[in-house]
Order: sequence, then C-alpha cells, then structure tokens
Amino acid sequence: MKVSELAKRSGVSIPTIKYYLREGLLPTGTPTATNQSSYDDEHLRRLRLVRALIDIGGLQIAQVRATLGVVDDDSAPLHEAFGAVMTGLAELPSSPPPDDVAVAEVDVDTWLESRSWTVAPGAPARRRLAEALTTLQRFGIAMGAADLDQHADFAEQVARLEVDFALAAPDRVAAVETMLVGTVVLERAHAEVRRLALEAVSAAARPDPSPPPTSSRSPSPPPG
Amino acid sequence: MKVSELAKRSGVSIPTIKYYLREGLLPTGTPTATNQSSYDDEHLRRLRLVRALIDIGGLQIAQVRATLGVVDDDSAPLHEAFGAVMTGLAELPSSPPPDDVAVAEVDVDTWLESRSWTVAPGAPARRRLAEALTTLQRFGIAMGAADLDQHADFAEQVARLEVDFALAAPDRVAAVETMLVGTVVLERAHAEVRRLALEAVSAAARPDPSPPPTSSRSPSPPPG
Repeated sequence: MKVSELAKRSGVSIPTIKYYLREGLLPTGTPTATNQSSYDDEHLRRLRLVRALIDIGGLQIAQVRATLGVVDDDSAPLHEAFGAVMTGLAELPSSPPPDDVAVAEVDVDTWLESRSWTVAPGAPARRRLAEALTTLQRFGIAMGAADLDQHADFAEQVARLEVDFALAAPDRVAAVETMLVGTVVLERAHAEVRRLALEAVSAAARPDPSPPPTSSRSPSPPPG
Repeated sequence: MKVSELAKRSGVSIPTIKYYLREGLLPTGTPTATNQSSYDDEHLRRLRLVRALIDIGGLQIAQVRATLGVVDDDSAPLHEAFGAVMTGLAELPSSPPPDDVAVAEVDVDTWLESRSWTVAPGAPARRRLAEALTTLQRFGIAMGAADLDQHADFAEQVARLEVDFALAAPDRVAAVETMLVGTVVLERAHAEVRRLALEAVSAAARPDPSPPPTSSRSPSPPPG
C-alpha cells in the first residue's frame, strides 16, 4: 500500500509516519518505480504498536526505539526478550537510591525470593516498587509483604494467561510484540478500572443524601 | 524551619524548592526578620506530595498545579474533590474520539451501569479505558465485560480499603492528599508488581532447560 493508505488505515498522519521513518521506529518500505515506497501489513502493525506505546504507555521516542530494538533482535532467547522489554520500558537513574529506598529494595528482593519469582537482578521494577513503597510509607500508608502477596497472587494469575497468549503467537516478533502490547496497554486498562473503582466507591461512601444517578439502590421506585 | 532544613528533610534541592514556590506548587513560607522565610511540616508534606506526583506519577508541572488546586479548594464536597482529582490526573484531548473508540466508550458506559458504579460523565477514565480496549482489540486481545468484571471486583475490594483510609484522615486536605497519593503511588506499585509477575511467569514458562536461580521447584536436592 502507499503511504497515504497506511495513514488512512492507521489513523496516523503522513508527516508523523515520515517522522517515525526518519527516527527508525518504522522500517522503510519497498521502493517502487514512481519514486515512492510501498508498505504492507507489517508496517501497519508496527505503526499501531508505536502509537500504543506513545499514546497509551506514555513512552518517549527514544524509549520506543530502544524497546523496538529488543523486539527485532532475534539473537536473544524469548524469555530474555520479554525481560529486556520490561527493562526498556522504564529507565532508572544511574545514581544510587536514597537510604530508605535502598532498604525497601532489599525488602522487595527478599519478598521476590519468598515467592520464588525469577526476575533479572537489574530489573527496574525492583527499584520502582521500592520507591513507591517508600513514598507510601512517608504518607503513613503501610504496604507489607501480605498486601504485596494479595496483589501478586492476582497479577500472577493474569500474567499466566498473558504469557500463554503471547507464546501462542505465530512467530517470535509477534510473540514479543504481543507481550509488549499486553504489558503497556493492559497495565493502562487495569489502572483505569482502578480509578473508576475509586471514584465509584468514594461516591457510594459520601455522606451526601441525594441518591447517585445510576445507583440500583434507590430507596423508592420512580413515580408512575 | 529554614529552606535549607526543608531541603535536607525532603531530599529536594533548594533551587528546586524555589522553583516550586515560583510555580505555585508550594505555599510561601512565613517571612522572618532576616529576609528569609520559615517553613513547617505542612510544607514538608506538600513537597513530598509534589515529588510523588512528578517522580512516581509522571505528572507535568501544570498537571500538578491543577491537581493541587482541587486539593486546596475546600468549597467542593469531599466526593467531588476525589472525582476532580481523578480528572486532574489525566487530560483528554478536546477532539472527538475515532469511531472505534467511540463505540468502545458506549460499551464502557454500559458496563459501568451494569456494575451500578457512579462515575462522573466527563471522567477521563471512561475514554482512556475505551482507548486501551480498542488498542488491545487491534492486536487481537479481546477484553470483554467478564474480564473487566474480574479486575473490577478486585479493584473495588482494594478501593474500599483506600477510601476508608482516606476518610479517616484528620481533615479535608489530608483526606484528599491521601486519596491522591493512594491513586498515583499505589497504581505505580500495582503496575510494578504486575511487571515482576509477567517476568517471573515468562521465566517459568521458558523452554530453557537450566533451572532458574531462585526457583523452589528444583527437581533434585542440592548435593551434600
């Protein structure tokens, strides 16, 4: 297909597509006789992946490039590619963590061992989780191993479905792409469900006596 | 306390504190005789909140300012403030959504009604969830009402604990602050637990025959 059709089918403008081509986020098309290039369904799929990472995952161009590099590097075993994708999604500062975060990081490591979870020693999620737990602590919100386990049990269940689904993909690139989309976009979906739940629960808990508009717990039937 | 002590206790540099003061993210201190200002524990708490929103929530300065405006506006009922905090955390484009996202948004609305969840009509989470579901669909990952319900049941359980905890805060500002920290930082903590779970499950599923280093499922006891 021509770049105009790629733009139409993806919903991404031609200038943006050309920008992604220049930045190496999208492989070049096949040159055609008319000084144009031809694109196929692989380009469309990759373009959708780039948009998902930017629009929904909030990634920067450089992070997208690094993450796609992992997807396309077929020298690494699939599991390592999955781990590298996680690492590419979150950059850590090179500076050592503050003392309290360092302490929390040891707790996170101990907790991971207690679950027999194999996670790369340099996985950014270790530090990021430690940072989040330290911040919660500063605000008096304690989240111990038991709370983590509750979330981890649920996350593990869902992760099994996701990994099985990714491994069933027809080839390696599709498997890593699926894992990447699942990680970024399902994470967003879960976060939004959580925000909706918080608003709904807070609405139900409010002392305001007027009944909420969509509540099924109306004290009396509507007139008529 | 002096600005130097505020910097020391918060781990935020003096120039950054002065920047936040200029940007209105931090209320000015009490002027002292020596042409300096004095700060108290409220400043320290607010500074920690600003850092949590930026470092862990990834918010921009303008978003932090808008969100803190909601925290400090005590004319709105508490439930509305909680909802407004959610709205302040996510900006939506003013343009209408693409057709497929609009369809998904109707599905989300129907689903919210099926749960009797009261959520503001303009809540960004409606559109954001619809966007995420549409993107998943494009990659062949179906997430129907039953899948959403599974996540929603769990999220609702956790949200009840969070809202109760926030409502137990000593005053209105502390309640909204706690809700805000909970929303942003617990969301990050859950996402990191999820990423760790994905890596661990993928490690356990890999066809690589070498046993994972922290696995408890070693096929034979260690020698000796």
